[in-house]
Amino acid sequence: MQIPEFSDIEKAHRLIETYIHRTPVLSSKSINKIVGAEVFFKCENFQKVGAFKFRGACNSVFSLPETEAQKGVCTHSSGNHAAALALAAQMRRIAAYIVMPDNAPEIKKKAVAGYGAQITFCKPTLEARESTLRQVAAKTGAIEIHPYNYFNVICGQGTVAKELIEDNGSFDLILCPVGGGGLLSGTAISTKALLPGAKVIACEPAGADDAFRSFQQKKLIPSVNPQTIADGLLTSLGSLNFEIIQQKVDDIVTVSEENIIAAMRMIWERMKIIIEPSSAVPLAAILENKINVQGRKVGIILSGGNVDLGNLPF
Amino acid sequence: MQIPEFSDIEKAHRLIETYIHRTPVLSSKSINKIVGAEVFFKCENFQKVGAFKFRGACNSVFSLPETEAQKGVCTHSSGNHAAALALAAQMRRIAAYIVMPDNAPEIKKKAVAGYGAQITFCKPTLEARESTLRQVAAKTGAIEIHPYNYFNVICGQGTVAKELIEDNGSFDLILCPVGGGGLLSGTAISTKALLPGAKVIACEPAGADDAFRSFQQKKLIPSVNPQTIADGLLTSLGSLNFEIIQQKVDDIVTVSEENIIAAMRMIWERMKIIIEPSSAVPLAAILENKINVQGRKVGIILSGGNVDLGNLPF
Repeated sequence: MQIPEFSDIEKAHRLIETYIHRTPVLSSKSINKIVGAEVFFKCENFQKVGAFKFRGACNSVFSLPETEAQKGVCTHSSGNHAAALALAAQMRRIAAYIVMPDNAPEIKKKAVAGYGAQITFCKPTLEARESTLRQVAAKTGAIEIHPYNYFNVICGQGTVAKELIEDNGSFDLILCPVGGGGLLSGTAISTKALLPGAKVIACEPAGADDAFRSFQQKKLIPSVNPQTIADGLLTSLGSLNFEIIQQKVDDIVTVSEENIIAAMRMIWERMKIIIEPSSAVPLAAILENKINVQGRKVGIILSGGNVDLGNLPF
Repeated sequence: MQIPEFSDIEKAHRLIETYIHRTPVLSSKSINKIVGAEVFFKCENFQKVGAFKFRGACNSVFSLPETEAQKGVCTHSSGNHAAALALAAQMRRIAAYIVMPDNAPEIKKKAVAGYGAQITFCKPTLEARESTLRQVAAKTGAIEIHPYNYFNVICGQGTVAKELIEDNGSFDLILCPVGGGGLLSGTAISTKALLPGAKVIACEPAGADDAFRSFQQKKLIPSVNPQTIADGLLTSLGSLNFEIIQQKVDDIVTVSEENIIAAMRMIWERMKIIIEPSSAVPLAAILENKINVQGRKVGIILSGGNVDLGNLPF
């Protein structure tokens, strides 16, 4: 598998910059005081569809040659990637075929349908999702866009850290949550290209620590029955993502559920912005003293803001 | 009583601009689509202490001549004004004496104490608050800064609409919540000076409709037992505020509690920002069809973002 270079991320950025939001970077004096560092939060909760996922989907859709694009795109997803791919396809005026588990939240089903995608429902197992997707792809000829283990998705996600560094200069540390590894691998490529001296540290829930264990043991270990409130981070690391992470990520740390909730609440209360639990994992790692940030300049990627207000942990 | 001119608001802005945040103006394509208008939200939830109140407090504190300032400032408040005045006083390095009802939320007591104010607790009645404040003022010589019925507070609050219009150009309508009337009166002065053709419409909970009734009957009618989730709007209109409102506000409309909650949730979900119920009242008025915004350019002032996450209405 080919590993993206930073020049691929630059190319992706030129391709998608008219479609995406260049999201703001916010900071909070009170959080800086609490953690003893200068922290800059890159707000992908304000991205279209409410998550960084739109960048990778957008780059993947707009990178397709015209003849392939006309067949449409497809994926299986119950979450942000489905909505992101549906919107990107709508923008290019091509078809999107989304396989969703029939127990996906109503709000997600509506969002995906609202972007004009054609949804095929299946049983909520990985086997059913994959076999249904194969059938859809065979029938339609649509190009499958994997949510993270995919060259053009990684290039799109890499534009988050690129913007953060362009807009806010040098950093000592860049912190990023890790689930499938799309955001993390893109972040690591951009950071090491632009700031070779900066460290990239991935933050993962202890209850879904396959990336941590894979990184420690230097071999890909899939998640088994992961449990965490950070529902964006339940997926197992992709193989292409893992290769990049081994080369370019300095460390992976894990955090407790309690600290994820405390960090989420701190950001809601002090910054007045809505983030999903996955976004809170890096700040949780600081609160849990897993990363020494004293006196440093730290960038944190807030991955998204899609949260069920009817089911909050506080 | 002297009524502020727009030039007083300009002067206030020059005085406080280094202390306040020039808050961002956000918009949401999906909300625009729902309401059929182009809506710009001025985000005072991102202001220091989490509310526009800091502007008026800051202008009041920094407008005092040195000899008066040295005596300190005082007020009675259980909410945002207390924190705002405490922080402004801390910035000028003068004393702040705050009378708070002993049943004020712990988080508010801590915030005020955290800004270095000296708190005197009293029984939670208006009589106890006023008499305790008189005692504190007599003992310390501190200058009382009223939360809304006060010239320099109104001038400070008027800088919100001034920034909104400076940053986003012309508007057909400016919508603003009304409680005591400090924000509304400042908003009306700035709007009518900068955009004489724009209409200023105040939005009030039906359960706390003293401004609506006062406006209709052209005489000041105090609130009796107001009931609303919009806790920032429980206070009765001030006399100076009412005089300005009668001259410069085009209409006052009322909204149901149900629509306040629906509007609050819409802003949380679509814009990923945290606002307090009072901030949701203008959008609620649109959702309730109390204001015709079709095809118009509308400015909405989001007054603050201080909400108890342990006690949400959804």
